[in-house]
Amino acid sequence: MNHFLDQLRAIVGDAHVLWDGDLTQWEQDWRRRVRGKALAVVRPANVEEVAATVRCCLAAGHSIVPQGGNTGLAEGSTPDASGSQVVLSLTRLNAVRNIDTANLTMTVEAGCVLQTVQEAAASSGLLFPLSLAAEGSCTIGGNLATNAGGTQVLRYGNARELCLGLEVVTPDGRIWRGTSGLRKDNTGYALRDLMIGSEGTLGIITAATLKLYPQPAARLSAWVSVPSMEQAVALLSAARTHLGEGLTAFEFMDAQSLQLVQHHMPQLRVPLDQEPSPYSVLLEHSDSESETHARMLFESLLESALDNAWITNAAIAESLAQSRAMWHVREHIPLAQAQEGPSLKHDISVEISKMPAFVAHTGEQLAAAYPDVRLVNFGHLGDGNLHYNVQAPAGMDAKTFAPLEDGISDLVYAAVLHFGGSFSAEHGIGGLKRGVLATHKSAVELDMMRAIKAALDPHHLLNPGRVLPDAAS
Amino acid sequence: MNHFLDQLRAIVGDAHVLWDGDLTQWEQDWRRRVRGKALAVVRPANVEEVAATVRCCLAAGHSIVPQGGNTGLAEGSTPDASGSQVVLSLTRLNAVRNIDTANLTMTVEAGCVLQTVQEAAASSGLLFPLSLAAEGSCTIGGNLATNAGGTQVLRYGNARELCLGLEVVTPDGRIWRGTSGLRKDNTGYALRDLMIGSEGTLGIITAATLKLYPQPAARLSAWVSVPSMEQAVALLSAARTHLGEGLTAFEFMDAQSLQLVQHHMPQLRVPLDQEPSPYSVLLEHSDSESETHARMLFESLLESALDNAWITNAAIAESLAQSRAMWHVREHIPLAQAQEGPSLKHDISVEISKMPAFVAHTGEQLAAAYPDVRLVNFGHLGDGNLHYNVQAPAGMDAKTFAPLEDGISDLVYAAVLHFGGSFSAEHGIGGLKRGVLATHKSAVELDMMRAIKAALDPHHLLNPGRVLPDAAS
Repeated sequence: MNHFLDQLRAIVGDAHVLWDGDLTQWEQDWRRRVRGKALAVVRPANVEEVAATVRCCLAAGHSIVPQGGNTGLAEGSTPDASGSQVVLSLTRLNAVRNIDTANLTMTVEAGCVLQTVQEAAASSGLLFPLSLAAEGSCTIGGNLATNAGGTQVLRYGNARELCLGLEVVTPDGRIWRGTSGLRKDNTGYALRDLMIGSEGTLGIITAATLKLYPQPAARLSAWVSVPSMEQAVALLSAARTHLGEGLTAFEFMDAQSLQLVQHHMPQLRVPLDQEPSPYSVLLEHSDSESETHARMLFESLLESALDNAWITNAAIAESLAQSRAMWHVREHIPLAQAQEGPSLKHDISVEISKMPAFVAHTGEQLAAAYPDVRLVNFGHLGDGNLHYNVQAPAGMDAKTFAPLEDGISDLVYAAVLHFGGSFSAEHGIGGLKRGVLATHKSAVELDMMRAIKAALDPHHLLNPGRVLPDAAS
Repeated sequence: MNHFLDQLRAIVGDAHVLWDGDLTQWEQDWRRRVRGKALAVVRPANVEEVAATVRCCLAAGHSIVPQGGNTGLAEGSTPDASGSQVVLSLTRLNAVRNIDTANLTMTVEAGCVLQTVQEAAASSGLLFPLSLAAEGSCTIGGNLATNAGGTQVLRYGNARELCLGLEVVTPDGRIWRGTSGLRKDNTGYALRDLMIGSEGTLGIITAATLKLYPQPAARLSAWVSVPSMEQAVALLSAARTHLGEGLTAFEFMDAQSLQLVQHHMPQLRVPLDQEPSPYSVLLEHSDSESETHARMLFESLLESALDNAWITNAAIAESLAQSRAMWHVREHIPLAQAQEGPSLKHDISVEISKMPAFVAHTGEQLAAAYPDVRLVNFGHLGDGNLHYNVQAPAGMDAKTFAPLEDGISDLVYAAVLHFGGSFSAEHGIGGLKRGVLATHKSAVELDMMRAIKAALDPHHLLNPGRVLPDAAS
């Protein structure tokens, strides 16, 4: 064992092999639901050290858990309880290698914090649009490994669609130098897209070339009250036609979500709260011309929506501060849920046309089977993606709620399957959802995934036991 | 042999197993450069028949060449010369299964002709934006199998980015029913993206769910004269900022391209031909508001471009007919090349910021080594993609030009590699570019591709000898 640690120290330096002391930040998942035990945490400084670490672990037979900001919600970036896995932290690979304004691309290392990437793009007058709650802590490598989503997917796509090239260390410790900024390259299989979203089970992403966009001339937000899910879907269709690609966010919140925010964060003002509505939508419009033009388009959309009774009330932010205040309300729903007590998260998607039927059906089933639980339903409706969360009955503690959790999730996932949806729209599988994957995916898909894993990582070196239900660990 | 053909007839019916008579349309590639010999052409009617055909061929040990419209430019959809391969034609799977206007998706079978797909979307008031020269003959299955590009990639992406779900028959004859219209689904590896662009070597695409877009309120074209490649790149940057996502095409043409059109198609009028320019660009702007708004934005962009001397002249189409006439000129370049005599096509891409240096460098090298050949350079500059074609010296016949071809292509591809570009931006590898793939891809990438091929198609049943340099045939 000491020999193995010495080998790792020879690769990354003494200071970057951690094995005694408090390793909580690397061993415990973000939501504090599971805690593993690492043999060591290794922090290489560059891609060559990552590759050497992989070869060293392969030779010694110790599997590797790649880790970025460790902010994932699916328990995919922490070690198991065996004490024999190596956590390979990418956080020291944090250089912005290049920003190419004419090509609208930037190349960054995996350990760059997402917010740093956004800021580096902005400092060149450009936009990197990936944006999500953990952006101050998560890393771009983790975002790509999990194909992160967030609030701008409607217009700009998931992490996969924002990436043009990757540098990857393979499970046999070789380096694939693929950080190209080409928009078109049909020379073989889509290895880049396969690595993205594979959650560190097929390769370790060490750098990426990302797409950038011109900064819009104006970004404007509006908050509207919507009487029903059907009307929300009608509003979405109209907004897409009316605003074209200007529509950059369409965030949905039910009344329960907003009540929790109002209750736990009284300093935040929920817009239009004089006349509570069953549902609210926060729209964002990014305009390449001007704020005046943005406002004109928004006003004509919302007037038409009022005329058609798709919405019952609307407020367009009059200032950046008002716009930020609207977004704060949306962003504080998860925290308000945490303060309210135990809850169960379901990150689901269904086709938008099926959303009203899904919400009606699942709501009825939940109410019948678990009359006291409270549905907290919000999310990226523009992408067909809801955080269909279930809050424990008022006053119930976690211990009492825990035995109900599997039954509730089974009910929700059965409904998702019935409507042809996804049980993990943007959070991935990790360790948390392997069981759901095993029961919800077709055998032919599972077999293809297993064959690819075995082909690229025959020794199950990288993140074993994650994503695939029965990978050796 | 007769027993095998009887088995195929039992699956698809007597009329749909073709083996004698003239099989030219299935055996010869689109550019008439290679001709193979099929054991039989099988035309199943549905996915079950495709799966049964695959199982039958697997049992009999006859490999399969999947084929759509057979319009590919890389010799990937015709059989080899052995006479032992089965051509599996998808053209009878041509139903539009579903159009979902609220979800902005449609599900179509692989054999649908691209133009039929576009028209079906338009008849529901929506846009399917994939558009390319062969759209009247190519099929959507082939477009996806080759990750087709075309003129709208700048705004809407390649075929891969326009596809949300696939139905695929695997090399062991099972059916993966994955035609989902979800925008977000992080439940495992990106099998869809892997199948797309794999050119029929990993699975047979039988149906797909495609993204649709609202029809723009107006589409406007403009033709501009550009003094240099540097100015073209500056114009592109300005157009992206100024028009935002309204910029849907940015097509580049050199003077030689337009002279060939003028010479061979005198009935077509090349815009702005009173003052010939080294380069011309055809821009398209799609506007979600109105034609007036589109024209206003275009005019202000082009005024600013004139002020900055990025362009020397400009014409905005005044009518749909004028716009069509501009596009006809662009679209007739390949035909004009064919009428002029033998030529060599290179479908290359480099990062846009490197384009001026690439064009200068490669042009000099070509002129020095092959002083009499004529460069015909045009294409999708907005994507960094040029059809960097080389026309034989005036009057030279194909037989005399042929011995020069390898040397010219070697020179062009060496330059592409030097500038970090791609030797096949949108046409794929097929049989034509396997050799270039072998010398231009890194060993680590080739090994990953081979491992995936062996894992998913261990018997090399599907399109063997295509894409990968040394697959068994």
